[in-house]
Amino acid sequence: MNSIDLTCVGSDTICAVSTPPGRGGIAVIRVSGPHALEIVQLRWKGKSLADMTSHTVHLGQLTDATGNILDQAVLTVYRAPNSFTGEDVVELACHGSTWIQQQVIQTLIDAGCRHASAGEFTRRAFANGRMDLSQAEAVADVIEAQSRAAHHVAMNQMRGRYSDELKSLRDKLLHFVALIELELDFSEEDVTFADRSEVSALAQEIHTLISHLADSYRDGNAIRNGLPVAIVGQTNAGKSTLLNALLRDDRALVSDIHGTTRDTIEDTVIMGGTLFRFIDTAGIRQTTDEVEQIGIIRTYQAIAKARIVLWLLDEAPTVTEQQDMQERSEGKRLVIVITKSDKGISLASDFSFFIPHSSLIQISAKTGQGIEALERSIYQAADLPTLSSSDVIVTNARHYDALQRAHVSILHVLDGLTSGLSGDLLSEDLRQTIDLLSEITGGQITPQETLNNIFQHFCVGK
Amino acid sequence: MNSIDLTCVGSDTICAVSTPPGRGGIAVIRVSGPHALEIVQLRWKGKSLADMTSHTVHLGQLTDATGNILDQAVLTVYRAPNSFTGEDVVELACHGSTWIQQQVIQTLIDAGCRHASAGEFTRRAFANGRMDLSQAEAVADVIEAQSRAAHHVAMNQMRGRYSDELKSLRDKLLHFVALIELELDFSEEDVTFADRSEVSALAQEIHTLISHLADSYRDGNAIRNGLPVAIVGQTNAGKSTLLNALLRDDRALVSDIHGTTRDTIEDTVIMGGTLFRFIDTAGIRQTTDEVEQIGIIRTYQAIAKARIVLWLLDEAPTVTEQQDMQERSEGKRLVIVITKSDKGISLASDFSFFIPHSSLIQISAKTGQGIEALERSIYQAADLPTLSSSDVIVTNARHYDALQRAHVSILHVLDGLTSGLSGDLLSEDLRQTIDLLSEITGGQITPQETLNNIFQHFCVGK
Repeated sequence: MNSIDLTCVGSDTICAVSTPPGRGGIAVIRVSGPHALEIVQLRWKGKSLADMTSHTVHLGQLTDATGNILDQAVLTVYRAPNSFTGEDVVELACHGSTWIQQQVIQTLIDAGCRHASAGEFTRRAFANGRMDLSQAEAVADVIEAQSRAAHHVAMNQMRGRYSDELKSLRDKLLHFVALIELELDFSEEDVTFADRSEVSALAQEIHTLISHLADSYRDGNAIRNGLPVAIVGQTNAGKSTLLNALLRDDRALVSDIHGTTRDTIEDTVIMGGTLFRFIDTAGIRQTTDEVEQIGIIRTYQAIAKARIVLWLLDEAPTVTEQQDMQERSEGKRLVIVITKSDKGISLASDFSFFIPHSSLIQISAKTGQGIEALERSIYQAADLPTLSSSDVIVTNARHYDALQRAHVSILHVLDGLTSGLSGDLLSEDLRQTIDLLSEITGGQITPQETLNNIFQHFCVGK
Repeated sequence: MNSIDLTCVGSDTICAVSTPPGRGGIAVIRVSGPHALEIVQLRWKGKSLADMTSHTVHLGQLTDATGNILDQAVLTVYRAPNSFTGEDVVELACHGSTWIQQQVIQTLIDAGCRHASAGEFTRRAFANGRMDLSQAEAVADVIEAQSRAAHHVAMNQMRGRYSDELKSLRDKLLHFVALIELELDFSEEDVTFADRSEVSALAQEIHTLISHLADSYRDGNAIRNGLPVAIVGQTNAGKSTLLNALLRDDRALVSDIHGTTRDTIEDTVIMGGTLFRFIDTAGIRQTTDEVEQIGIIRTYQAIAKARIVLWLLDEAPTVTEQQDMQERSEGKRLVIVITKSDKGISLASDFSFFIPHSSLIQISAKTGQGIEALERSIYQAADLPTLSSSDVIVTNARHYDALQRAHVSILHVLDGLTSGLSGDLLSEDLRQTIDLLSEITGGQITPQETLNNIFQHFCVGK
């Protein structure tokens, strides 16, 4: 028999290359599903897979359908449910030529596997209860992470810290829903199981926690996708020279890796283990030129989206310019960077203005003077929380959205408690809050569309 | 203790990423050496490595020097000598982010590993007798292989078919050296242990085998590096159109992979599982233009190096051109390709010449007519051996060189036998042949320089 007939089984067996694409010393091909062992057995010369215990490694040979040897390979068996996906899993470590990788995938498909779609292994891990939805999402974040901070937050989420926190919130809410609903069952008898003041204190506590989580998204999003820094200043103010000075040595490597996908008008730099996304802008000045005006509108948009604004100056700004920048940078951190300090510009006499919430740094990108101080200044302006292994930070837009709605819902509960809302309506609001928190971990039934949307952004093989 | 002091040990422990560079679902980091288990233990949270049996797999966590968790990982232990290198080996499958890969390598180096140089794992496998030199070389060839034929030949070599054949040759030679040297010990007594006619028959047999192996290099080199096909013809004869027609669909993928390193004037196409390397040339015609003459000299060089010459014609050649091509393609296979058959050129009336060892194909790259026949024609002209799993084909220039010298040496033996050379001189020639054959498999002491030269072309991590 050269292939497994899968027409009559409920769940199929999938395969994909799990290691990075291209040529290397070795490549790992992962096979998962109810027929993983049977299918690989059809293409395996060596010890019988049926005789292998879980979590053991075996040397043997992979063949094509006609028995020709494709490669010597190392086979690892994981028996359900003790595998990444919770299904039977076989991992094949073969020589990393692109030809072999193609041939092994081809022969496994011929034998009865289906090629996995993006994120399908992780999706099965979720479906089989090996991880909740937020942990599954964190797997992709761990793989994407480019900086220490992004990695740290994703690892915490993958390891379930976040899920634990949400679970504890849900459990508290469920407890009170149960008490309130018990009252409803005994409503004729006018008993009170749930102390309203206790419910109120809990709702207040949960409100605070949800707000705290939702607020953490501002930092979480910055950590995951890079903290946006708008660089504003005339083209001759030394923006490119500054960027080059920041992108030196050790950082260049990281930037190169990222460079494959980066937007041409942005440059990323890792400082203090955090990714900063520098957005270059056109200069701001009064003009009637239409094209230049479009550039200035874009600059204003970049400032609006930024968390930090670097204002590069090589001469004193006019009063109008000062007022304009003060207005635009409201609620942001402004770092005023006096460039070309080697040109003899005097900080005291030429720059005697003051903007609140701003810091002033004098640099010379050419001589390197002030660059380190500027880096410290940018990092301080970022004002990111110190990360510890127990931190729970929201980095995911989907979670943020659910938390925002849970926030509204818990406010309803609080209002209801104040206005003496009846138990059944209170219970409804509490249940809605619980459902919204459950959306994040996928604890209740998650729509296929949501799942498709989450897993399509994964790489194939994970 | 945060790192292993290696100042007092003979052999160090090496580490490298063994999977292809870049980001993927998982990446495998290989650690090999006497301290592999101890070093990884310093960065491992999970079951103690000392308690793990060989060839088992364990889930745990990798940390940095301060105990911060870098990643969840799957650890596989191979205890010496049952590993790829013959040393203790630990393989760490971690999440495939570039950040994690860098961090894990860094933390292992901090703990006492050295980063492996190119091919160092395979070099250690050779040094520890896990494979001979020709098998070690085949590992790189297996990873490089782009076509079924190249893969087939490299796999056979890696699996030791080639070594077996050489070993059998050596054993036969050693047997006769022993007999002849025994005679020398008893020379006073005038006994003959080695029948000269038997030695002569064996030497003849070995001569045939060595010639056969050396001759196989012509095919082996073509299979490994691509079979050279010179395309000759006027620029308007339809060369690019033909190449595009040959590079269609399924082949384009393979060609893309190779494209990263290919020479701009060459195009590779896989046909019948074999890589063909098409070398585009300038047209040939009588000219006094100096620049054009340089082009024509290059064309002649390309023809000289080619195994097959495709002569593209869209009009009948002159008698001089015919004679010139007949001369230039001597000893090669010439395929005359009448292009633009859709333009109504008549094969019978316009092309009534004949060149020996040539075939004639009429095509239209535009309509696709004749393309498949041309492919068959090129494949037949390649005249490659049908590959079976027992084939021994030389693909390596170093081996070819040793075989050529072994060939000269065995001819000496044959001459000596004819001219009644004394036993001691005969023995010397036989020993030299044995040494030359041993050079291929590295059976005797191989100079460091040769080893460096071999392994520097490997990828790091293998």
